[in-house]
Amino acid sequence: MISQKKVERWAVFETALKTCETHKNPFSGVRLEAVFRSGGRSVKVNGFYDGDGVYKIRFMPDTVGHWTFSISSSDPSLNGVTGEFECTTAAGAGNHGPIRVVAPDRFEYADGSPYKPFGTTCYAWIHQSETLQNETLEALRESPFNKIRMCVFPKRYAFNTAEPELFPFPGSKERGFDLERFEPRFFQGLEQRIEQLAELGIEADMILFHPYDKGHWGFDSMSSDRDEFYLRYVTARLSAYRNVWWSLANEYDFMREKRKEDWDRLFQIVQECDPYQHLRSIHNGTKMYDPSSLDLYDHAKPWVDHVSLQHWDLTAVDSIRREYGKPVVVDECCYEGDIPRRWGNITGDEMTHRFWEGTVRGAYVGHGETYMHPENILWWSHGGKLHGTSPARIGFLRGLLEEAPQNLSIIDSIKDVPVLGVEGEYYLLYFGIHRPAGRQIQLPEEAVYTAEVIDTWKMTIEPLEGTFSGACAISLPSRPYLALRILRCI
Amino acid sequence: MISQKKVERWAVFETALKTCETHKNPFSGVRLEAVFRSGGRSVKVNGFYDGDGVYKIRFMPDTVGHWTFSISSSDPSLNGVTGEFECTTAAGAGNHGPIRVVAPDRFEYADGSPYKPFGTTCYAWIHQSETLQNETLEALRESPFNKIRMCVFPKRYAFNTAEPELFPFPGSKERGFDLERFEPRFFQGLEQRIEQLAELGIEADMILFHPYDKGHWGFDSMSSDRDEFYLRYVTARLSAYRNVWWSLANEYDFMREKRKEDWDRLFQIVQECDPYQHLRSIHNGTKMYDPSSLDLYDHAKPWVDHVSLQHWDLTAVDSIRREYGKPVVVDECCYEGDIPRRWGNITGDEMTHRFWEGTVRGAYVGHGETYMHPENILWWSHGGKLHGTSPARIGFLRGLLEEAPQNLSIIDSIKDVPVLGVEGEYYLLYFGIHRPAGRQIQLPEEAVYTAEVIDTWKMTIEPLEGTFSGACAISLPSRPYLALRILRCI
Repeated sequence: MISQKKVERWAVFETALKTCETHKNPFSGVRLEAVFRSGGRSVKVNGFYDGDGVYKIRFMPDTVGHWTFSISSSDPSLNGVTGEFECTTAAGAGNHGPIRVVAPDRFEYADGSPYKPFGTTCYAWIHQSETLQNETLEALRESPFNKIRMCVFPKRYAFNTAEPELFPFPGSKERGFDLERFEPRFFQGLEQRIEQLAELGIEADMILFHPYDKGHWGFDSMSSDRDEFYLRYVTARLSAYRNVWWSLANEYDFMREKRKEDWDRLFQIVQECDPYQHLRSIHNGTKMYDPSSLDLYDHAKPWVDHVSLQHWDLTAVDSIRREYGKPVVVDECCYEGDIPRRWGNITGDEMTHRFWEGTVRGAYVGHGETYMHPENILWWSHGGKLHGTSPARIGFLRGLLEEAPQNLSIIDSIKDVPVLGVEGEYYLLYFGIHRPAGRQIQLPEEAVYTAEVIDTWKMTIEPLEGTFSGACAISLPSRPYLALRILRCI
Repeated sequence: MISQKKVERWAVFETALKTCETHKNPFSGVRLEAVFRSGGRSVKVNGFYDGDGVYKIRFMPDTVGHWTFSISSSDPSLNGVTGEFECTTAAGAGNHGPIRVVAPDRFEYADGSPYKPFGTTCYAWIHQSETLQNETLEALRESPFNKIRMCVFPKRYAFNTAEPELFPFPGSKERGFDLERFEPRFFQGLEQRIEQLAELGIEADMILFHPYDKGHWGFDSMSSDRDEFYLRYVTARLSAYRNVWWSLANEYDFMREKRKEDWDRLFQIVQECDPYQHLRSIHNGTKMYDPSSLDLYDHAKPWVDHVSLQHWDLTAVDSIRREYGKPVVVDECCYEGDIPRRWGNITGDEMTHRFWEGTVRGAYVGHGETYMHPENILWWSHGGKLHGTSPARIGFLRGLLEEAPQNLSIIDSIKDVPVLGVEGEYYLLYFGIHRPAGRQIQLPEEAVYTAEVIDTWKMTIEPLEGTFSGACAISLPSRPYLALRILRCI
């Protein structure tokens, strides 16, 4: 019995066991699971083979107190092992537990702390050199982002042609891959990155499948048995990390080999294997500017927690949120950059605008960056450094929302402009491309309010003179990309 | 017999006849029609009562040569009158005849001259003071616009609360209206304005019904008999003006009293009564930013020539054009201005952008202007002066298209950017909010091309160095709102 004595709440308890047996295929030939118990509760988790004759069990305790566990295995040298540990109050700054959905338009940490996703995208950052990966982490530390979309599988696509050093499976493009085994060193590296992200307060939105392969390695077209084998291994390894989210796929609809029923089954496998029920969703592709091409997976299905969306039109998010009654995360709405492709060449102004437009309509918008680079290091895929002008403005918006009451929602009583707020207390209006010279606004008569004009680009907040109550006329500078914040003061 | 001896082709032949009879209601009590004949052809037109005992017949000859006519009437003093005239070649500069649809994406004058609508909107300009109406005409003369949307009925709405001096029907708000008679002086004034527009080369897109009344005068909720009586009178008076278009309604779907079947019937009356088959369409309202609220009349119906659209998203016009196979005119896509209402406060930059975006997607975009004004004179409704920054840029775009080959259409061979052109000859790419640092473009190998970067805002055209052929890499300035024009030179 090898185990830690004390584990922080929502941290990873891990126990490693050396087998005395010899298995033909130690990844597939051994059943290994453990049941963890505390008070009246029990939680079953799957173990996994980590190479060099070592099996591991990981567990994320969610309640403070005494926990025991017992291991059951088809391998007699592992079967029957028991242990115990103390789960202590989370002491690590920033350890608030995993994220959950607490309202049709809101997420929260398990400890009740507010969480509003401000995500970015570095699809293949863990498949780059160590140096570049470390540079990415430094850039993330300085950035406003608290979520990152990233792939388990490497990426083959425009600007992405280098072969990574390690793959999830042993092998290489030249020698071929053994899809019946895994490459523990690859996963150990990934896990280190997930831990480092957790330290930065960043959620790892793990993309489990994607279409950027098309026969190059074949990971997008494995048999359904291999898909399941892969998901069981990944969930056994990663579920105990509190900052993991499951994104079943990126641009799932561009993966011609899988049908919607296949996605149902893959979702159900993740749902069954992850004892903590980390957030699950799936991200669509789209032919930009052809709304009829938007082929969303049915996010109403019970195994989907939130809507994960690619959409360029942030004014459409209201209706999508109403349709599903779940929080909407627009992971991709075009990227700030200047590459030839339409989805990767909007300005920082436009990206900032899209963040605001989606935010005041009750959605959560994601960032990505695709500037041409002499060495083809584009943030969106490789990580590296951030070059754009939107991250500072996104940080400004995040700051405004963190100062705001946490139960913000869409307010319909003020017409002709989207408003996020708490009726009677707080109103955040965003005019976007519209630039009225003034507005009539009906505020409650029994209270008194201050109003501030927010320049979303210059990141300035200018108070308007006087106070406001009841029906009031508010003059505004006639220029676009302004917001108006109205706060109750009496 | 009173008649002119010579009439220019597509000008108005008019004959006025004084009755010797006394009619209880000279507007409804007398049947009056005429048949015009030339060569083997005959055209039947309706006459109308113009007040003071005078009935009139108007006719627009479309063929050069000798024409005769004979009048048939229930009034014996009018019945049997005959006459003749010579139709001469159109000599008036700018008299190219009425507009017709010649392709699923193109209009043309009857004489084969090209016509691309660049419309504006002054809904109630003919209901304003004489001085203001004349100012509007002066502004139109200096403007790039060759079409104007305007209402027969006066308008009651925000910024529109003054009572006009004359109405289509005799009476006033206070005394009530006699819906069984018309006010010839009102129509004489309107006709003068239509003639003045024709002199300026501007099409009069006549809006026959609209919802901006809501019980104030009651013109939006007349009985179906009164609607028909009104349409028969309006078409008898106005059809002979070559620059008239029929817009059955503005925001038809906001007129709760009428159902779609009613609109079918009203369309059919206009179709029956207008011997020249002037262009017919109908314009929708919309709750902006809720695409699901877009409730278009079925523009596939045979009496609709072109799609008349209100839509804020110009990227959607392709699919609408494909759906109906008829030219799409986006009459309203928000107005340049700064009023509080969402539809009336976009910048001149944004209006310019929307014109380009719609144009390169094969649609025709309309302008309107709604700047706050100390005397509440807003171009969109009242006319007056133009204050905005978009008209000059719209004129620049119009100039570019007039220089281009006339058979422009959508080109799909260049991906990821909308392109209007003639394959092999002429390409106009518009990048809009996208700003690639460069593009690979595949041009035909057997020809040689020049390329120019067009700044749609600064109205500059800068040639790129060298020539281009086959697969070529074109560097672009990384800023938004640029177009690229590629012209075959060898």
